[in-house]
Amino acid sequence: MNLLLLDDADFVAADRVLLRDRRLTHLHEVHRAESGDSLRVGRLGGLMGEGRLLNLSRDEAELQVSFTQAPPAKLPLTLLLALPRPKMLRRVLQTVAAMGVPRLVLLNSYRVEKSFWQTPFLEPAAIREQLVLGLEQARDTVLPEVIIEKRFKPFVEDRLPALAAGSLGLVGHPGPWPACPRAVEQAVTLAIGPEGGWIPYEVEKLREAGLAPVQLGERILRVETAVTALLARLF
Amino acid sequence: MNLLLLDDADFVAADRVLLRDRRLTHLHEVHRAESGDSLRVGRLGGLMGEGRLLNLSRDEAELQVSFTQAPPAKLPLTLLLALPRPKMLRRVLQTVAAMGVPRLVLLNSYRVEKSFWQTPFLEPAAIREQLVLGLEQARDTVLPEVIIEKRFKPFVEDRLPALAAGSLGLVGHPGPWPACPRAVEQAVTLAIGPEGGWIPYEVEKLREAGLAPVQLGERILRVETAVTALLARLF
Repeated sequence: MNLLLLDDADFVAADRVLLRDRRLTHLHEVHRAESGDSLRVGRLGGLMGEGRLLNLSRDEAELQVSFTQAPPAKLPLTLLLALPRPKMLRRVLQTVAAMGVPRLVLLNSYRVEKSFWQTPFLEPAAIREQLVLGLEQARDTVLPEVIIEKRFKPFVEDRLPALAAGSLGLVGHPGPWPACPRAVEQAVTLAIGPEGGWIPYEVEKLREAGLAPVQLGERILRVETAVTALLARLF
Repeated sequence: MNLLLLDDADFVAADRVLLRDRRLTHLHEVHRAESGDSLRVGRLGGLMGEGRLLNLSRDEAELQVSFTQAPPAKLPLTLLLALPRPKMLRRVLQTVAAMGVPRLVLLNSYRVEKSFWQTPFLEPAAIREQLVLGLEQARDTVLPEVIIEKRFKPFVEDRLPALAAGSLGLVGHPGPWPACPRAVEQAVTLAIGPEGGWIPYEVEKLREAGLAPVQLGERILRVETAVTALLARLF
Protein backbone atom coordinates (compact mmCIF):
# COMPACT_ATOMS: atom_id res chain seq x y z
CA MET A 1 0.00 0.00 0.00
CA ASN A 2 1.95 2.99 -1.33
CA LEU A 3 -1.10 5.24 -1.05
CA LEU A 4 -3.76 5.27 1.66
CA LEU A 5 -6.93 5.50 -0.42
CA LEU A 6 -9.84 7.27 1.27
CA ASP A 7 -13.52 7.03 0.53
CA ASP A 8 -16.26 9.60 1.29
CA ALA A 9 -17.44 7.42 4.17
CA ASP A 10 -14.05 7.78 5.90
CA PHE A 11 -14.42 11.55 6.36
CA VAL A 12 -15.63 12.94 9.68
CA ALA A 13 -14.71 16.51 8.67
CA ALA A 14 -13.38 18.13 5.49
CA ASP A 15 -9.77 17.47 6.58
CA ARG A 16 -10.23 14.59 9.00
CA VAL A 17 -10.69 10.83 8.48
CA LEU A 18 -11.24 7.84 10.78
CA LEU A 19 -10.17 4.35 9.68
CA ARG A 20 -11.17 1.07 11.27
CA ASP A 21 -10.79 -1.59 8.57
CA ARG A 22 -7.96 -3.44 6.80
CA ARG A 23 -6.18 -0.11 6.30
CA LEU A 24 -5.90 0.25 10.08
CA THR A 25 -4.44 -3.26 10.26
CA HIS A 26 -2.04 -2.38 7.46
CA LEU A 27 -0.89 0.78 9.25
CA HIS A 28 -0.08 -1.30 12.31
CA GLU A 29 1.37 -4.41 10.77
CA VAL A 30 3.09 -3.30 7.60
CA HIS A 31 3.78 0.41 8.03
CA ARG A 32 4.35 0.02 11.79
CA ALA A 33 3.05 3.59 11.89
CA GLU A 34 2.96 5.82 14.96
CA SER A 35 1.05 8.96 15.89
CA GLY A 36 2.66 11.94 14.18
CA ASP A 37 3.75 9.97 11.09
CA SER A 38 3.00 11.40 7.66
CA LEU A 39 1.56 9.20 4.93
CA ARG A 40 0.63 9.64 1.30
CA VAL A 41 -3.15 9.70 0.95
CA GLY A 42 -5.56 9.90 -1.96
CA ARG A 43 -9.26 10.56 -2.23
CA LEU A 44 -11.00 7.92 -4.33
CA GLY A 45 -11.73 9.56 -7.68
CA GLY A 46 -9.98 12.77 -6.59
CA LEU A 47 -6.64 14.29 -5.65
CA MET A 48 -3.67 12.89 -3.75
CA GLY A 49 -1.89 14.54 -0.85
CA GLU A 50 -0.62 13.98 2.65
CA GLY A 51 -2.13 12.65 5.86
CA ARG A 52 -0.78 13.13 9.37
CA LEU A 53 -1.62 10.48 11.95
CA LEU A 54 -3.26 12.35 14.85
CA ASN A 55 -4.13 9.24 16.81
CA LEU A 56 -3.45 5.59 16.23
CA SER A 57 -4.89 2.93 18.51
CA ARG A 58 -5.82 -0.73 18.12
CA ASP A 59 -9.37 0.30 17.25
CA GLU A 60 -8.95 3.27 14.96
CA ALA A 61 -6.66 5.68 13.18
CA GLU A 62 -7.42 9.39 12.93
CA LEU A 63 -5.67 11.40 10.25
CA GLN A 64 -5.60 15.05 9.24
CA VAL A 65 -5.48 15.15 5.45
CA SER A 66 -4.82 17.64 2.68
CA PHE A 67 -5.03 17.10 -1.06
CA THR A 68 -2.86 18.95 -3.55
CA GLN A 69 -1.76 16.67 -6.37
CA ALA A 70 -3.52 15.21 -9.41
CA PRO A 71 -3.36 11.43 -9.82
CA PRO A 72 -1.19 10.10 -12.68
CA ALA A 73 -2.63 10.11 -16.19
CA LYS A 74 -4.41 7.01 -17.44
CA LEU A 75 -3.36 5.21 -20.60
CA PRO A 76 -5.41 6.03 -23.74
CA LEU A 77 -6.70 2.48 -23.86
CA THR A 78 -9.72 0.22 -23.83
CA LEU A 79 -8.62 -3.29 -22.87
CA LEU A 80 -10.76 -6.30 -23.85
CA LEU A 81 -9.85 -9.41 -21.95
CA ALA A 82 -11.27 -12.89 -22.31
CA LEU A 83 -12.42 -13.67 -18.76
CA PRO A 84 -9.45 -15.30 -16.98
CA ARG A 85 -9.80 -18.08 -14.42
CA PRO A 86 -10.86 -16.68 -11.02
CA LYS A 87 -7.47 -16.69 -9.33
CA MET A 88 -5.87 -14.98 -12.32
CA LEU A 89 -8.80 -12.54 -12.57
CA ARG A 90 -8.02 -11.07 -9.17
CA ARG A 91 -4.37 -10.47 -10.06
CA VAL A 92 -5.23 -9.12 -13.50
CA LEU A 93 -7.65 -6.61 -11.96
CA GLN A 94 -4.88 -5.34 -9.69
CA THR A 95 -2.45 -5.14 -12.60
CA VAL A 96 -4.96 -3.34 -14.81
CA ALA A 97 -5.62 -0.73 -12.12
CA ALA A 98 -1.91 -0.36 -11.31
CA MET A 99 -0.89 0.09 -14.96
CA GLY A 100 -3.46 2.87 -15.50
CA VAL A 101 -6.00 1.16 -17.75
CA PRO A 102 -9.15 3.33 -17.66
CA ARG A 103 -11.60 0.83 -19.18
CA LEU A 104 -11.64 -2.95 -19.08
CA VAL A 105 -14.12 -5.21 -20.85
CA LEU A 106 -14.28 -8.79 -19.54
CA LEU A 107 -15.48 -10.82 -22.47
CA ASN A 108 -16.58 -14.35 -23.16
CA SER A 109 -14.65 -16.56 -25.56
CA TYR A 110 -14.96 -20.16 -26.70
CA ARG A 111 -12.04 -21.14 -24.47
CA VAL A 112 -13.39 -19.43 -21.33
CA GLU A 113 -14.73 -22.20 -19.10
CA LYS A 114 -18.39 -21.61 -18.29
CA SER A 115 -17.69 -22.05 -14.58
CA PHE A 116 -15.47 -18.93 -14.61
CA TRP A 117 -18.62 -16.80 -14.97
CA GLN A 118 -19.92 -18.17 -11.64
CA THR A 119 -17.04 -16.89 -9.52
CA PRO A 120 -17.85 -14.55 -6.62
CA PHE A 121 -14.79 -12.55 -7.71
CA LEU A 122 -16.99 -11.07 -10.45
CA GLU A 123 -19.34 -9.42 -7.94
CA PRO A 124 -19.00 -5.62 -8.08
CA ALA A 125 -17.65 -5.39 -4.51
CA ALA A 126 -15.04 -8.07 -5.22
CA ILE A 127 -13.93 -6.40 -8.45
CA ARG A 128 -13.68 -3.07 -6.67
CA GLU A 129 -11.59 -4.59 -3.88
CA GLN A 130 -8.93 -5.80 -6.33
CA LEU A 131 -8.96 -2.54 -8.29
CA VAL A 132 -8.42 -0.57 -5.06
CA LEU A 133 -5.41 -2.77 -4.23
CA GLY A 134 -3.97 -1.92 -7.65
CA LEU A 135 -4.56 1.81 -7.16
CA GLU A 136 -2.96 1.69 -3.71
CA GLN A 137 0.07 -0.11 -5.18
CA ALA A 138 0.61 2.32 -8.07
CA ARG A 139 -0.53 5.54 -6.35
CA ASP A 140 -3.64 6.37 -8.33
CA THR A 141 -7.12 7.35 -7.16
CA VAL A 142 -9.36 6.73 -10.17
CA LEU A 143 -11.10 3.35 -10.46
CA PRO A 144 -11.11 1.82 -13.94
CA GLU A 145 -14.50 1.17 -15.48
CA VAL A 146 -15.15 -2.58 -15.75
CA ILE A 147 -17.71 -3.83 -18.27
CA ILE A 148 -18.86 -7.44 -18.27
CA GLU A 149 -19.89 -8.97 -21.59
CA LYS A 150 -21.02 -12.57 -21.31
CA ARG A 151 -21.82 -12.92 -25.01
CA PHE A 152 -18.99 -12.58 -27.49
CA LYS A 153 -20.88 -12.16 -30.76
CA PRO A 154 -23.39 -9.43 -29.88
CA PHE A 155 -20.67 -7.44 -28.13
CA VAL A 156 -18.16 -7.69 -30.96
CA GLU A 157 -20.72 -7.13 -33.72
CA ASP A 158 -22.92 -4.47 -32.15
CA ARG A 159 -20.89 -2.56 -29.56
CA LEU A 160 -17.20 -3.00 -30.28
CA PRO A 161 -17.10 -1.02 -33.54
CA ALA A 162 -18.33 2.12 -31.74
CA LEU A 163 -16.09 1.48 -28.72
CA ALA A 164 -13.01 1.10 -30.96
CA ALA A 165 -13.85 3.92 -33.38
CA GLY A 166 -10.96 6.35 -33.88
CA SER A 167 -8.48 4.15 -32.02
CA LEU A 168 -5.75 1.76 -33.14
CA GLY A 169 -7.43 -1.64 -32.81
CA LEU A 170 -5.20 -4.61 -31.94
CA VAL A 171 -5.64 -8.28 -31.04
CA GLY A 172 -2.75 -9.87 -29.17
CA HIS A 173 -2.54 -13.33 -30.70
CA PRO A 174 0.29 -15.81 -31.28
CA GLY A 175 0.97 -16.51 -34.94
CA PRO A 176 2.44 -15.12 -38.15
CA TRP A 177 1.26 -11.55 -37.53
CA PRO A 178 3.19 -8.29 -37.39
CA ALA A 179 4.98 -7.60 -34.11
CA CYS A 180 3.02 -5.50 -31.65
CA PRO A 181 3.86 -1.83 -32.37
CA ARG A 182 5.88 0.24 -29.90
CA ALA A 183 5.37 3.68 -28.38
CA VAL A 184 2.16 4.48 -30.22
CA GLU A 185 0.86 8.05 -30.05
CA GLN A 186 -2.84 7.35 -30.48
CA ALA A 187 -5.60 5.73 -28.44
CA VAL A 188 -5.64 1.93 -28.57
CA THR A 189 -8.29 -0.78 -28.28
CA LEU A 190 -6.48 -4.00 -27.41
CA ALA A 191 -8.01 -7.49 -27.12
CA ILE A 192 -6.16 -10.25 -25.26
CA GLY A 193 -7.41 -13.82 -25.49
CA PRO A 194 -7.85 -16.61 -22.95
CA GLU A 195 -5.37 -19.33 -22.07
CA GLY A 196 -5.10 -21.28 -25.32
CA GLY A 197 -5.92 -18.14 -27.34
CA TRP A 198 -8.90 -16.91 -29.33
CA ILE A 199 -10.32 -19.43 -31.80
CA PRO A 200 -10.02 -18.49 -35.52
CA TYR A 201 -13.71 -17.47 -35.68
CA GLU A 202 -13.15 -15.00 -32.83
CA VAL A 203 -10.03 -13.53 -34.44
CA GLU A 204 -12.05 -13.10 -37.64
CA LYS A 205 -14.90 -11.34 -35.81
CA LEU A 206 -12.44 -9.05 -33.99
CA ARG A 207 -10.82 -8.20 -37.34
CA GLU A 208 -14.21 -7.36 -38.82
CA ALA A 209 -14.69 -4.98 -35.89
CA GLY A 210 -11.44 -3.21 -36.85
CA LEU A 211 -8.87 -4.95 -34.62
CA ALA A 212 -5.68 -6.22 -36.32
CA PRO A 213 -3.78 -9.24 -34.95
CA VAL A 214 -0.29 -8.61 -33.58
CA GLN A 215 2.14 -10.92 -31.80
CA LEU A 216 4.74 -10.71 -29.05
CA GLY A 217 7.08 -13.53 -30.07
CA GLU A 218 7.18 -17.29 -29.65
CA ARG A 219 6.86 -17.42 -25.89
CA ILE A 220 3.40 -18.09 -24.48
CA LEU A 221 2.82 -15.78 -21.54
CA ARG A 222 0.29 -15.98 -18.73
CA VAL A 223 -2.54 -13.49 -19.17
CA GLU A 224 -1.26 -11.17 -16.44
CA THR A 225 2.25 -11.15 -17.94
CA ALA A 226 0.90 -10.65 -21.46
CA VAL A 227 -1.20 -7.65 -20.33
CA THR A 228 1.83 -5.99 -18.72
CA ALA A 229 4.17 -6.78 -21.61
CA LEU A 230 1.77 -5.49 -24.28
CA LEU A 231 1.01 -2.26 -22.40
CA ALA A 232 4.69 -1.59 -21.63
CA ARG A 233 5.49 -1.98 -25.30
CA LEU A 234 2.57 0.06 -26.63
CA PHE A 235 2.90 3.10 -24.34
CA MET B 1 1.70 -26.38 -19.04
CA ASN B 2 2.11 -25.61 -22.74
CA LEU B 3 5.13 -27.87 -22.99
CA LEU B 4 5.72 -31.22 -21.31
CA LEU B 5 9.27 -30.81 -20.06
CA LEU B 6 11.28 -34.05 -19.81
CA ASP B 7 14.35 -34.80 -17.75
CA ASP B 8 17.00 -37.46 -18.35
CA ALA B 9 15.49 -39.56 -15.55
CA ASP B 10 12.19 -39.81 -17.46
CA PHE B 11 13.72 -41.71 -20.37
CA VAL B 12 13.43 -45.50 -20.50
CA ALA B 13 14.70 -45.57 -24.10
CA ALA B 14 16.04 -43.00 -26.55
CA ASP B 15 12.50 -42.25 -27.80
CA ARG B 16 10.40 -43.41 -24.82
CA VAL B 17 9.54 -41.76 -21.49
CA LEU B 18 7.54 -42.80 -18.42
CA LEU B 19 5.93 -40.18 -16.19
CA ARG B 20 4.51 -40.71 -12.71
CA ASP B 21 4.63 -37.31 -11.01
CA ARG B 22 2.68 -34.00 -11.17
CA ARG B 23 2.96 -34.11 -14.96
CA LEU B 24 0.88 -37.30 -14.95
CA THR B 25 -1.72 -35.58 -12.77
CA HIS B 26 -1.67 -32.60 -15.11
CA LEU B 27 -2.21 -34.80 -18.16
CA HIS B 28 -5.27 -36.30 -16.49
CA GLU B 29 -6.79 -33.28 -14.83
CA VAL B 30 -5.95 -30.33 -17.04
CA HIS B 31 -5.22 -31.80 -20.47
CA ARG B 32 -7.78 -34.58 -20.00
CA ALA B 33 -5.46 -36.51 -22.28
CA GLU B 34 -6.14 -39.95 -23.75
CA SER B 35 -3.95 -42.64 -25.25
CA GLY B 36 -3.04 -41.67 -28.81
CA ASP B 37 -3.00 -37.92 -28.12
CA SER B 38 -0.08 -35.86 -29.31
CA LEU B 39 1.57 -33.31 -27.04
CA ARG B 40 4.37 -30.80 -27.32
CA VAL B 41 7.40 -32.00 -25.43
CA GLY B 42 10.82 -30.58 -24.64
CA ARG B 43 14.01 -32.06 -23.27
CA LEU B 44 15.38 -30.03 -20.39
CA GLY B 45 18.34 -28.11 -21.77
CA GLY B 46 17.72 -29.49 -25.25
CA LEU B 47 15.34 -29.56 -28.20
CA MET B 48 11.55 -29.44 -28.37
CA GLY B 49 9.34 -31.78 -30.35
CA GLU B 50 6.32 -34.03 -30.15
CA GLY B 51 5.22 -36.82 -27.87
CA ARG B 52 2.56 -39.41 -28.55
CA LEU B 53 0.78 -40.99 -25.59
CA LEU B 54 1.21 -44.73 -25.96
CA ASN B 55 -0.42 -45.59 -22.64
CA LEU B 56 -2.09 -43.48 -20.00
CA SER B 57 -3.27 -44.99 -16.73
CA ARG B 58 -3.82 -43.66 -13.24
CA ASP B 59 -0.29 -44.70 -12.32
CA GLU B 60 1.79 -43.73 -15.29
CA ALA B 61 1.99 -42.22 -18.74
CA GLU B 62 4.15 -43.69 -21.49
CA LEU B 63 5.07 -41.48 -24.42
CA GLN B 64 6.99 -41.93 -27.63
CA VAL B 65 8.95 -38.75 -28.22
CA SER B 66 10.92 -37.07 -30.99
CA PHE B 67 12.82 -33.79 -30.88
CA THR B 68 13.26 -31.53 -33.86
CA GLN B 69 13.00 -27.88 -32.87
CA ALA B 70 15.35 -25.48 -31.07
CA PRO B 71 13.94 -23.68 -28.03
CA PRO B 72 13.29 -19.93 -28.40
CA ALA B 73 16.25 -17.56 -28.05
CA LYS B 74 16.99 -16.08 -24.64
CA LEU B 75 17.15 -12.33 -24.05
CA PRO B 76 20.69 -10.82 -24.04
CA LEU B 77 20.29 -9.93 -20.37
CA THR B 78 21.64 -10.32 -16.88
CA LEU B 79 18.91 -9.39 -14.39
CA LEU B 80 19.83 -8.32 -10.85
CA LEU B 81 16.90 -8.40 -8.50
CA ALA B 82 16.78 -7.38 -4.87
CA LEU B 83 15.44 -10.53 -3.20
CA PRO B 84 11.62 -10.26 -3.19
CA ARG B 85 9.41 -11.53 -0.37
CA PRO B 86 8.98 -15.33 -0.59
CA LYS B 87 5.52 -15.37 -2.17
CA MET B 88 6.61 -12.86 -4.81
CA LEU B 89 9.90 -14.71 -5.33
CA ARG B 90 8.08 -17.79 -6.57
CA ARG B 91 6.06 -15.81 -9.11
CA VAL B 92 9.09 -13.77 -10.21
CA LEU B 93 11.09 -16.94 -10.85
CA GLN B 94 8.30 -18.21 -13.11
CA THR B 95 8.12 -14.88 -14.92
CA VAL B 96 11.89 -14.68 -15.37
CA ALA B 97 11.99 -18.16 -16.88
CA ALA B 98 8.93 -17.50 -19.06
CA MET B 99 10.28 -14.21 -20.42
CA GLY B 100 13.60 -15.78 -21.45
CA VAL B 101 16.02 -14.29 -18.93
CA PRO B 102 19.20 -16.43 -19.08
CA ARG B 103 20.84 -15.21 -15.87
CA LEU B 104 19.31 -13.91 -12.66
CA VAL B 105 21.20 -12.57 -9.64
CA LEU B 106 19.19 -12.42 -6.39
CA LEU B 107 20.83 -9.70 -4.40
CA ASN B 108 20.62 -8.25 -0.94
CA SER B 109 19.54 -4.65 -0.38
CA TYR B 110 18.95 -2.48 2.67
CA ARG B 111 15.19 -2.82 2.21
CA VAL B 112 15.22 -6.63 1.86
CA GLU B 113 13.96 -8.01 5.17
CA LYS B 114 16.51 -10.37 6.70
CA SER B 115 13.84 -13.05 7.13
CA PHE B 116 13.43 -13.29 3.34
CA TRP B 117 16.82 -15.03 3.16
CA GLN B 118 15.50 -17.83 5.38
CA THR B 119 12.72 -18.95 3.04
CA PRO B 120 12.72 -22.57 1.84
CA PHE B 121 11.80 -21.17 -1.59
CA LEU B 122 15.50 -20.29 -1.99
CA GLU B 123 16.58 -23.94 -1.84
CA PRO B 124 17.93 -25.08 -5.23
CA ALA B 125 15.11 -27.62 -5.71
CA ALA B 126 12.46 -25.00 -4.93
CA ILE B 127 14.01 -22.48 -7.31
CA ARG B 128 14.21 -25.09 -10.01
CA GLU B 129 10.55 -26.04 -9.52
CA GLN B 130 9.39 -22.49 -10.21
CA LEU B 131 11.75 -22.05 -13.15
CA VAL B 132 10.43 -25.27 -14.70
CA LEU B 133 6.85 -23.96 -14.37
CA GLY B 134 7.91 -20.82 -16.24
CA LEU B 135 9.59 -22.83 -19.00
CA GLU B 136 6.52 -25.07 -19.34
CA GLN B 137 4.31 -21.97 -19.61
CA ALA B 138 6.40 -20.22 -22.26
CA ARG B 139 7.63 -23.32 -24.15
CA ASP B 140 11.33 -23.18 -23.46
CA THR B 141 13.71 -25.90 -22.29
CA VAL B 142 16.74 -24.03 -20.94
CA LEU B 143 16.84 -23.24 -17.22
CA PRO B 144 18.09 -19.76 -16.33
CA GLU B 145 21.18 -19.60 -14.16
CA VAL B 146 20.31 -18.24 -10.71
CA ILE B 147 23.07 -16.68 -8.61
CA ILE B 148 22.48 -15.80 -4.95
CA GLU B 149 24.41 -12.86 -3.51
CA LYS B 150 23.67 -12.21 0.15
CA ARG B 151 26.08 -9.30 0.43
CA PHE B 152 25.43 -6.21 -1.65
CA LYS B 153 28.74 -4.36 -1.41
CA PRO B 154 31.26 -7.10 -2.26
CA PHE B 155 29.08 -8.24 -5.15
CA VAL B 156 28.59 -4.76 -6.61
CA GLU B 157 32.19 -3.68 -6.07
CA ASP B 158 34.06 -6.85 -6.96
CA ARG B 159 31.94 -8.93 -9.31
CA LEU B 160 29.36 -6.68 -10.98
CA PRO B 161 31.83 -4.63 -13.10
CA ALA B 162 33.04 -7.79 -14.86
CA LEU B 163 29.51 -9.19 -15.13
CA ALA B 164 28.24 -5.96 -16.71
CA ALA B 165 31.28 -5.30 -18.94
CA GLY B 166 30.33 -4.60 -22.55
CA SER B 167 26.60 -4.39 -21.79
CA LEU B 168 24.22 -1.48 -21.38
CA GLY B 169 23.93 -1.16 -17.58
CA LEU B 170 20.63 0.08 -16.17
CA VAL B 171 19.01 0.49 -12.75
CA GLY B 172 15.21 0.65 -12.73
CA HIS B 173 14.50 3.29 -10.10
CA PRO B 174 11.69 5.83 -9.62
CA GLY B 175 12.83 9.44 -9.81
CA PRO B 176 13.98 12.19 -12.16
CA TRP B 177 15.95 9.89 -14.43
CA PRO B 178 15.76 9.35 -18.18
CA ALA B 179 12.95 7.05 -19.31
CA CYS B 180 13.95 3.41 -19.75
CA PRO B 181 15.18 3.02 -23.37
CA ARG B 182 13.17 0.98 -25.87
CA ALA B 183 14.12 -1.77 -28.31
CA VAL B 184 17.83 -1.80 -27.52
CA GLU B 185 20.13 -3.77 -29.81
CA GLN B 186 22.85 -4.61 -27.32
CA ALA B 187 23.20 -6.84 -24.24
CA VAL B 188 21.77 -5.35 -21.03
CA THR B 189 22.53 -5.63 -17.32
CA LEU B 190 19.42 -4.47 -15.47
CA ALA B 191 19.03 -4.02 -11.69
CA ILE B 192 15.55 -3.84 -10.14
CA GLY B 193 15.16 -2.82 -6.51
CA PRO B 194 13.07 -4.13 -3.63
CA GLU B 195 9.65 -2.87 -2.54
CA GLY B 196 10.40 0.69 -1.45
CA GLY B 197 13.31 0.90 -3.90
CA TRP B 198 17.09 0.95 -3.59
CA ILE B 199 18.47 3.39 -1.01
CA PRO B 200 20.60 6.28 -2.39
CA TYR B 201 23.84 4.58 -1.31
CA GLU B 202 22.91 1.50 -3.34
CA VAL B 203 22.01 3.55 -6.42
CA GLU B 204 25.40 5.27 -6.12
CA LYS B 205 27.26 1.95 -5.85
CA LEU B 206 25.36 0.56 -8.84
CA ARG B 207 26.27 3.71 -10.81
CA GLU B 208 29.91 3.28 -9.91
CA ALA B 209 29.68 -0.25 -11.31
CA GLY B 210 28.46 1.22 -14.61
CA LEU B 211 24.65 0.99 -14.25
CA ALA B 212 22.66 4.16 -15.10
CA PRO B 213 19.31 4.87 -13.40
CA VAL B 214 16.22 4.88 -15.63
CA GLN B 215 12.53 5.20 -14.75
CA LEU B 216 9.23 3.84 -15.98
CA GLY B 217 6.88 6.66 -14.97
CA GLU B 218 5.10 7.74 -11.81
CA ARG B 219 3.31 4.50 -11.09
CA ILE B 220 4.87 2.18 -8.54
CA LEU B 221 4.68 -1.37 -9.84
CA ARG B 222 5.00 -4.65 -7.98
CA VAL B 223 8.34 -6.32 -8.63
CA GLU B 224 6.85 -8.96 -10.91
CA THR B 225 5.03 -6.32 -12.98
CA ALA B 226 8.11 -4.08 -13.12
CA VAL B 227 10.26 -6.96 -14.38
CA THR B 228 7.81 -7.74 -17.18
CA ALA B 229 7.27 -4.08 -18.11
CA LEU B 230 11.00 -3.26 -18.24
CA LEU B 231 11.85 -6.35 -20.32
CA ALA B 232 8.96 -5.76 -22.74
CA ARG B 233 10.16 -2.21 -23.27
CA LEU B 234 13.86 -3.02 -23.59
CA PHE B 235 13.58 -5.95 -26.03
